[in-house]
Amino acid sequence: MEINTKVLSGFMELLPHEQVEFDRLKTLIESTFRSFGFSPLDTPVIERSEVLLANAGAEINKQVYFAYNGPLAEKKDALALRFDLTVPLARYVAEHFSALAFPFRRMHIGKVYRGERAQKGRFREFYQCDIDVIGRNSLSLSYDAELPAIIYQLFKRLNFGKFTIRINNRKVLGGFIAELGATADASEILRIVDKAEKIPREKLLSEFVDLGLNDAQVAKLLEFMGIKGSPNEILERLGELNIPNEIFATGVSELATVVEILEQMGIEADYFAIDLAIARGLDYYTGTVYETILDEYPGIGSVCSGGRYDNLAENYTKEKLPGVGISIGLTRLFWQLREIGLILAANKSVADVIVLPQSPQNMPEALKVAAAIRQIGLNVDILFEDIKMNKKLQYVTKKDAPYLVVARTNDEGESVLSLQYKDGEELKKAILPLEELVATLAPTEVG
Amino acid sequence: MEINTKVLSGFMELLPHEQVEFDRLKTLIESTFRSFGFSPLDTPVIERSEVLLANAGAEINKQVYFAYNGPLAEKKDALALRFDLTVPLARYVAEHFSALAFPFRRMHIGKVYRGERAQKGRFREFYQCDIDVIGRNSLSLSYDAELPAIIYQLFKRLNFGKFTIRINNRKVLGGFIAELGATADASEILRIVDKAEKIPREKLLSEFVDLGLNDAQVAKLLEFMGIKGSPNEILERLGELNIPNEIFATGVSELATVVEILEQMGIEADYFAIDLAIARGLDYYTGTVYETILDEYPGIGSVCSGGRYDNLAENYTKEKLPGVGISIGLTRLFWQLREIGLILAANKSVADVIVLPQSPQNMPEALKVAAAIRQIGLNVDILFEDIKMNKKLQYVTKKDAPYLVVARTNDEGESVLSLQYKDGEELKKAILPLEELVATLAPTEVG
Repeated sequence: MEINTKVLSGFMELLPHEQVEFDRLKTLIESTFRSFGFSPLDTPVIERSEVLLANAGAEINKQVYFAYNGPLAEKKDALALRFDLTVPLARYVAEHFSALAFPFRRMHIGKVYRGERAQKGRFREFYQCDIDVIGRNSLSLSYDAELPAIIYQLFKRLNFGKFTIRINNRKVLGGFIAELGATADASEILRIVDKAEKIPREKLLSEFVDLGLNDAQVAKLLEFMGIKGSPNEILERLGELNIPNEIFATGVSELATVVEILEQMGIEADYFAIDLAIARGLDYYTGTVYETILDEYPGIGSVCSGGRYDNLAENYTKEKLPGVGISIGLTRLFWQLREIGLILAANKSVADVIVLPQSPQNMPEALKVAAAIRQIGLNVDILFEDIKMNKKLQYVTKKDAPYLVVARTNDEGESVLSLQYKDGEELKKAILPLEELVATLAPTEVG
Repeated sequence: MEINTKVLSGFMELLPHEQVEFDRLKTLIESTFRSFGFSPLDTPVIERSEVLLANAGAEINKQVYFAYNGPLAEKKDALALRFDLTVPLARYVAEHFSALAFPFRRMHIGKVYRGERAQKGRFREFYQCDIDVIGRNSLSLSYDAELPAIIYQLFKRLNFGKFTIRINNRKVLGGFIAELGATADASEILRIVDKAEKIPREKLLSEFVDLGLNDAQVAKLLEFMGIKGSPNEILERLGELNIPNEIFATGVSELATVVEILEQMGIEADYFAIDLAIARGLDYYTGTVYETILDEYPGIGSVCSGGRYDNLAENYTKEKLPGVGISIGLTRLFWQLREIGLILAANKSVADVIVLPQSPQNMPEALKVAAAIRQIGLNVDILFEDIKMNKKLQYVTKKDAPYLVVARTNDEGESVLSLQYKDGEELKKAILPLEELVATLAPTEVG
């Protein structure tokens, strides 16, 4: 009796009605990814440590979970749990290279593991929902535009309110920094740019100064990061800067192409923006980068991020595999949306209909109507317990399904079906023959 | 370059077209479970070892994977990966008891981990697809009948051919063995009964003899296990045996009730059978037990098994929680079906339609038609690479989607859409205006 049944710190566990909502979001993400032709992938959670950690930095090395089975001695640190879905993708593409059609569109929705310091809203086990398109040797920039088009479709469907997809190109920022004449490492500068929105202005300035940037350089950088306007206005401004740097020019041209295709794809103009301050912390992005902000909840930070990389699997294969991808951290996002009350206004039930046989005599009728309702695609729960009616109704209340059907015996001794549901605040009740009852439910969109 | 990218032994990894089929089966299982009102559950893969191993036998203790993060010394064996979905369910119900509506219907489809000896068709990471109904203090026998009704619906939909759900009751077998007068432990005898079908007759006999059963006892037991007939014939035979054992009588009565309700539920009579030799190895089943056999592939063994247990969570709570559940080992089943060629006769593509813009000028038309086809619920992959047409067609061939749309410029310089698909062996091709093209695809059931 003294076993601790609480879920481990940093692990999320949901109640049934929350899980229904979580799964609804997950399914919506999955079906949107599928509608753009992405193949599902499902790699093992456990991999060889040498594979997972081939290119991992110090932080990941600290966070990774190792696994073992049997005597530990010879197996210490040999197996690990994946900490993202990108490294397993790289291994997969290297291993199954000849069986895949390139560009390879893959989606993967799965759990990953990171032993982060436990704190509110940080999870050690969490879902990532990733799509990537991997090219062989090269990959058209159109894919850089298709990914925000998919984000656009998805977040419209998710219905969390107005959002903005912020786009930048690492070459633009990188080229600009190269021309600044700073002695500091460009990636160190990028790392600070990346967190500019999250830290106070003063701290930002002092971090730049600590890197050895002089006042003029800091001012130029901040002015650059703050360029605002419509995508085409920003592109025009970038042209006017006359920066004599080839990487910068390439970046601007790529950005212009992506913006042009995005417009062709019919994305509403106020749903995307160029933000020259977006760097994305990860070192491996080399071109287009994305962040997505829920306009009404900017404090949540980016809810869908990603970018273009030059070579996915260089640790595992000689093939050159450029790619572009985005990722949603669903567990954290769900937690945040729940915290701000955007999720779970209403209880959710898997069952659309609960069927109650009033007594065991009414069972044949109850079974018949349940089967008929399932036939039209609805989920039906029959309560089989032979208990008092008020206890049965407690069950119904707790489950909170939209429809209730009671199979009971009327004064003439016949078994009849009564349908009950709420229409707004009004409780509707009707005794109906089976066919009519099913027909009443049939056109209803339950979801 | 020397990193081993092969998947670990005992772990399954599928190619894209196989994964599509695997996911189709998984989704079908899930939607069938949902249609009976089962709530999805998704507990952490990592749990405290004291929770997972609270009641585990020696075999599980050997097979369990432990996990750790950071310095190992103080954490050794503290965390483990779940080896089934039942123990986490027990912990979950104990922890969230007051928030749940009983009988609690839960489904869980997730990966579990067992370090079994690696051999063909045995997996160390595999999907279990479980449903259980958990009662508070008691649980109606109707649920024992509903589970085979769900198996029936499910395997009809899975379409692996004729199958038989074999039902027994542990009390029948247990009561009979108690009356045999054998000195051996009943659970030892049950363990041998359970594998009777899988070992040669001679070995079976010698194992019974080794347990101390005399010839008369063995003969009686074998005769009992071999009783054949329709469910009602078998129930009649059991009555005629006049076995003066209360547990036996209770078991027969429960079995009769389950059979009666199964008939009410409309399960075709030749899809279920009483099999008095079914024991199910696990010690914790106490009443109804199930196995499911694909009639044409009996060698696969049971593809869906389960049963009734008296008390789910006695290690974690004082509440009495009887339940009944079934489980499908999907990874192994998929592997077996693939081995016998029942899966993957055809390549499967996530994309229903591939759209090829002949050249970049045709992109606007290609984007428009892709969006319109997505609108009617189909999955569409646009190939954006600006490569030669024969390379584009190689991509199409490798993906093997049912429909191809080419957006090209005709001799008059207009952009036109051409739809191509196979109708049996015949290749159909038509140039169609956008609306008509979409209408042609609209009524098609693609799956």
